Amino acid sequence: LKNLRKQNLGLRIKVIVPVLKGIWEDITEKELCSIAQPTTEIEVRGLEYGPKSVECEYDECLAAIGILNEVKKAERQGFDAVVINCFADPAIHAARELVRIPVVAPAWSSMFLASLLGRVFTIILPKIFGLGALGIVERLAKNYGFDNKLASVRYVNVEVLDFLKSRNLLEKALLNEAKKAIEEDGADVIILGCTGMIVVARFLSQALPAPVIEPSSAALKVAEMLVDLKMSHSKLSYSLPPSKLREYSLE
Amino acid sequence: LKNLRKQNLGLRIKVIVPVLKGIWEDITEKELCSIAQPTTEIEVRGLEYGPKSVECEYDECLAAIGILNEVKKAERQGFDAVVINCFADPAIHAARELVRIPVVAPAWSSMFLASLLGRVFTIILPKIFGLGALGIVERLAKNYGFDNKLASVRYVNVEVLDFLKSRNLLEKALLNEAKKAIEEDGADVIILGCTGMIVVARFLSQALPAPVIEPSSAALKVAEMLVDLKMSHSKLSYSLPPSKLREYSLE
Amino acid sequence: LKNLRKQNLGLRIKVIVPVLKGIWEDITEKELCSIAQPTTEIEVRGLEYGPKSVECEYDECLAAIGILNEVKKAERQGFDAVVINCFADPAIHAARELVRIPVVAPAWSSMFLASLLGRVFTIILPKIFGLGALGIVERLAKNYGFDNKLASVRYVNVEVLDFLKSRNLLEKALLNEAKKAIEEDGADVIILGCTGMIVVARFLSQALPAPVIEPSSAALKVAEMLVDLKMSHSKLSYSLPPSKLREYSLE
Amino acid sequence: LKNLRKQNLGLRIKVIVPVLKGIWEDITEKELCSIAQPTTEIEVRGLEYGPKSVECEYDECLAAIGILNEVKKAERQGFDAVVINCFADPAIHAARELVRIPVVAPAWSSMFLASLLGRVFTIILPKIFGLGALGIVERLAKNYGFDNKLASVRYVNVEVLDFLKSRNLLEKALLNEAKKAIEEDGADVIILGCTGMIVVARFLSQALPAPVIEPSSAALKVAEMLVDLKMSHSKLSYSLPPSKLREYSLE
Amino acid sequence: LKNLRKQNLGLRIKVIVPVLKGIWEDITEKELCSIAQPTTEIEVRGLEYGPKSVECEYDECLAAIGILNEVKKAERQGFDAVVINCFADPAIHAARELVRIPVVAPAWSSMFLASLLGRVFTIILPKIFGLGALGIVERLAKNYGFDNKLASVRYVNVEVLDFLKSRNLLEKALLNEAKKAIEEDGADVIILGCTGMIVVARFLSQALPAPVIEPSSAALKVAEMLVDLKMSHSKLSYSLPPSKLREYSLE
Amino acid sequence: LKNLRKQNLGLRIKVIVPVLKGIWEDITEKELCSIAQPTTEIEVRGLEYGPKSVECEYDECLAAIGILNEVKKAERQGFDAVVINCFADPAIHAARELVRIPVVAPAWSSMFLASLLGRVFTIILPKIFGLGALGIVERLAKNYGFDNKLASVRYVNVEVLDFLKSRNLLEKALLNEAKKAIEEDGADVIILGCTGMIVVARFLSQALPAPVIEPSSAALKVAEMLVDLKMSHSKLSYSLPPSKLREYSLE
Repeated sequence: LKNLRKQNLGLRIKVIVPVLKGIWEDITEKELCSIAQPTTEIEVRGLEYGPKSVECEYDECLAAIGILNEVKKAERQGFDAVVINCFADPAIHAARELVRIPVVAPAWSSMFLASLLGRVFTIILPKIFGLGALGIVERLAKNYGFDNKLASVRYVNVEVLDFLKSRNLLEKALLNEAKKAIEEDGADVIILGCTGMIVVARFLSQALPAPVIEPSSAALKVAEMLVDLKMSHSKLSYSLPPSKLREYSLE
Repeated sequence: LKNLRKQNLGLRIKVIVPVLKGIWEDITEKELCSIAQPTTEIEVRGLEYGPKSVECEYDECLAAIGILNEVKKAERQGFDAVVINCFADPAIHAARELVRIPVVAPAWSSMFLASLLGRVFTIILPKIFGLGALGIVERLAKNYGFDNKLASVRYVNVEVLDFLKSRNLLEKALLNEAKKAIEEDGADVIILGCTGMIVVARFLSQALPAPVIEPSSAALKVAEMLVDLKMSHSKLSYSLPPSKLREYSLE
Repeated sequence: LKNLRKQNLGLRIKVIVPVLKGIWEDITEKELCSIAQPTTEIEVRGLEYGPKSVECEYDECLAAIGILNEVKKAERQGFDAVVINCFADPAIHAARELVRIPVVAPAWSSMFLASLLGRVFTIILPKIFGLGALGIVERLAKNYGFDNKLASVRYVNVEVLDFLKSRNLLEKALLNEAKKAIEEDGADVIILGCTGMIVVARFLSQALPAPVIEPSSAALKVAEMLVDLKMSHSKLSYSLPPSKLREYSLE
Repeated sequence: LKNLRKQNLGLRIKVIVPVLKGIWEDITEKELCSIAQPTTEIEVRGLEYGPKSVECEYDECLAAIGILNEVKKAERQGFDAVVINCFADPAIHAARELVRIPVVAPAWSSMFLASLLGRVFTIILPKIFGLGALGIVERLAKNYGFDNKLASVRYVNVEVLDFLKSRNLLEKALLNEAKKAIEEDGADVIILGCTGMIVVARFLSQALPAPVIEPSSAALKVAEMLVDLKMSHSKLSYSLPPSKLREYSLE
Repeated sequence: LKNLRKQNLGLRIKVIVPVLKGIWEDITEKELCSIAQPTTEIEVRGLEYGPKSVECEYDECLAAIGILNEVKKAERQGFDAVVINCFADPAIHAARELVRIPVVAPAWSSMFLASLLGRVFTIILPKIFGLGALGIVERLAKNYGFDNKLASVRYVNVEVLDFLKSRNLLEKALLNEAKKAIEEDGADVIILGCTGMIVVARFLSQALPAPVIEPSSAALKVAEMLVDLKMSHSKLSYSLPPSKLREYSLE
Repeated sequence: LKNLRKQNLGLRIKVIVPVLKGIWEDITEKELCSIAQPTTEIEVRGLEYGPKSVECEYDECLAAIGILNEVKKAERQGFDAVVINCFADPAIHAARELVRIPVVAPAWSSMFLASLLGRVFTIILPKIFGLGALGIVERLAKNYGFDNKLASVRYVNVEVLDFLKSRNLLEKALLNEAKKAIEEDGADVIILGCTGMIVVARFLSQALPAPVIEPSSAALKVAEMLVDLKMSHSKLSYSLPPSKLREYSLE
């Protein structure tokens, strides 16, 4: 099978981690390869410039230019699809305007997947600062048409930048919130509300009676599905930006 | 690659065609194999007893027992997932109660795929008898939470039982309705509203500027995705039927 | 007045109890006669074949054929209307396709009645097995357009098959849940979510400050109302099934 | 049967026509008696003071005091239920606060009846002055939770005060709009949007393939149903007004 | 600046307090002047006849004629806009039919303002009698299209007629409910659900971390905004009532 | 009055035009001053770097950093409020996170103003490129909770960059679409869907029977209203971004 991958028989998918490069690439690649089709080639990329993490709309704006550059490059490099690997789905609509290959986002893919599997889902976020993050997630759900499937938004008390060094703590906290989501909010599917939670996803899947959706994996599989089907986002709606003077325009 | 398929390295998916066996199995299998992962094994099955086609809720009720028997058998036979291959998604909820392997349906899969690709979609049905078929499709969309993504439901003047012998007519009629859906109803994604339209799907994809979703293919790829992710419908909500006396109970 | 009933001056309504015959017919007939118009004739019928109770979608599928047979027969026998007497409203859409006389269902009628009487209602179910029954009720509410009137779905810990022998227990449990529905969920109308609860409906009506809807009674009165108005479901939408080969077709 | 009516065995229902008395009482009583239960006694009452017809919210405000007086009197007089017989359902919520007997309204009853019979309904109004009447009807539909069942609101070019002298014109105009509602708007049920249309309801029922709902009749039958069921609006929500100084308080 | 006001350079706004005159005029005028534009002239008017307070729909009906008279007079007197100063927004639609100058209402304006400032809001009512007041507020929210922004409706245990003599009690009770709204219901904006709460609004604004909307002030500023923009409600929808016999017609 | 403005008695509002500076500042300032309160000081600012116009989500991303810089600077400079003057409301949520003074957006303000004035509104856009712009506007409407008030989105065939040199053409085209919106789509309020249309707004207001909302003016007046009320967006939900490494962070 390894040979197949080398022979370029399979798909090539670029996964953009829209934060400063260096932390998330390796673990993300390792985990995604374990659920990809055997012939799929995955390249995970962080940003040269951008925020260290995405926790508010301000961070999303700061990450946008870097994301759009990488998306445009991906198409030129011959990738079959792109994943913008952050649960805020930053710049997803703009990115889809720029290219013809599918651009896929984790929150969107996760909610899609959740609504195929059950009645209503709960999203569990990392530690939040004010209620702003709830607003972001609710706007995404409404935007994608899933607001009536959203049982609740919950959060743990562990910051995203501490996930790698506090796995046990994170596991316990997520387990606790997920159980409350099932018992108190009536959720029958759990969505991990941060791509960084990939480090504890397997544990949670095994510990809970409900399906647990890890958003990077969901996005990757949706990307594969679209490429296999030779489909992409509708260019009727995600039409190419008209050309004109843009001082910051991408290379 | 052929060897891979034989070595049982890949997935095994049963596709149930919930009408009297004999007409749709071969063409469905051929088309689905062309978009399946190279190692996926597909078995397409019609019913021994049931309606010749599914065009109303009465037909759905007549097909239900046969479908549920096949679904239950599929799990025992070691299949990884089941597709109930009819755009009315007959008995989908009941089927999910009976087994732990994913059971996937074409209308559901198509609407979700469509909502990942654009703003609003149009579903084009075969010739209808009264407005009942519109009601069925609208109830499905509402049931799955996609009623606000439904631009319109249209239909052609070709009966489902004439699809195989009238391909040209069907192609032209679908093309015509799809164009009206885009121009008059503002749709940016087209869903073919009958699994029998698989015979003309390729032509339509190439002839239209919008993504065209063929429902059998959508369901198959969703099934593959779920198995790859080791996920299934939530057994919290699709709980096993409590055991008790049932005169018609399945073998 | 008794004479009037005998002289066939009034309506004739068939009430189909879609479970194995023998348990519910007598008590249902007795209770329904007490609220029917004095000249209405009521015939209550269980199934020859079918599940012992309807607690999941699988049970609904098993009951469907039997129901449809009885509905079709009812029209031939000259009944003025049919009630499918189970709170899951099994096969209601298919049944309406088959005949011109009104076919009426308890959950639908109850939600209709509740929304005429107050702001939001709570439905109280028998003991549930998993969350599946909640999904069934929520889908019905959405299907009929009442999801925004549904304050909550609650349930007691008494199985439907124990209702007759545990009336006191059932009364207390329903009273308890109804009070919580009013105080915690803000409900101002209570719907008994099982036609078997007819055995304790009078007690609850007297014990609670909110209207209590017994679903068999609601369905019967809606049936009478429709016949008096000479109205039935729209045959534009519930069009007769097109004739074709159906292996299981009804007598 | 006539004797039954005289012996006061049946229900007594007051029908308030909330416009200046003199025009509508006789014809309304005659038509309603023809569909009432044989033992129901109906008393139709116009207002001493009020507008000549109800065509805007201003007219509703002018009619309110007279309506509320009649409702309060009806309870004291021992009536079993009240119908406020105008399609704008004026003062319905206030009236329900004042009494314990059921108060029923034609638009509300019609929309509920329509939603029991089909998918989506069209309401056809008399001649309108500006778009204000559309707003009134849309607010009612939203208020009662039926906005998603409303296919369209249409109107004829005949003023309500000309209905009696222009029956033929009215019949033709309604027939014309109803046909367009079915063909262009997809309606499968038609609601006559004015209680004055009772004069042509029978003709329309026979001339159209869809159920035609006459709102006075719908309200009367809902009133009878509630009394038979010994039910009324929830006094939890329609609580009695707290007593205090009210300069205009009712006798 | 005082001179400006005298020179009639600014706006003239009539504020109708739709209850028996004598209690609320002075304090309302004083508070509104403190937030009005420096040149705006404000006239606050109670009713000659009407209820002592508005706590149910019956009170609204009793206040309606008095309100409509004052609105009509306001236009004749050359006022630029009218505020109907009660959180039930009584007779707002009828009033808009009668005149061309903007007629503005506190609940409508408050919900509008709240939805500009945050995600979801809580409305806190005075002491309620039964659940009727909740129904009124919910119908208003639905009517204006804000039901999906309504986090909760809460109430304190202080009657509106005791507000002036129990300010401390009212402040504490409102503070308490507002905190629960933020912590338990997730509200990020608080609406004071009674124009009489103007007496404690400043205290609450300073004591809470969320914006606190005082409804009279909101309505006044919306009125000023509309006059500055030379805009008013659409006379297409709020068309003038057709002229005809109306026994109670306004002077 | 001029003196008042100089004496800094009034508000100071910064209006950010989120495109390359040079074209829109003067005309925008002139028009806004004509409807501002007499003492309000308005400063209109274009961007140093950014797109020449905002016609897609890609343009929005390119403008975001420049907008956020100006917003942050505005607070430091002592402005009372900020308007982001483009109908796509770019970076509105991120901007609100960064500051405590109100940040207001034209589309949001226009939709809320429209919903205060009538039943349903139509938005008329400049020439569009593909259907992408429709998607942007629909997402905004949904995001703000106004999707059920949106009668239609229409567009003219004049590009935004040609507005200044083709006023007559623009006027005629807008008039034409507005009339169709009223007659065909049932709109009773018209929203000009581009801040550049300020150049023809007066003409349209006078030529149409429905209120015409010019979005820059709507935003300015909402900003004034908020400052007068001493209110701003809820910092519970628009919480300050947590501090951390951000390579692109604003000065």
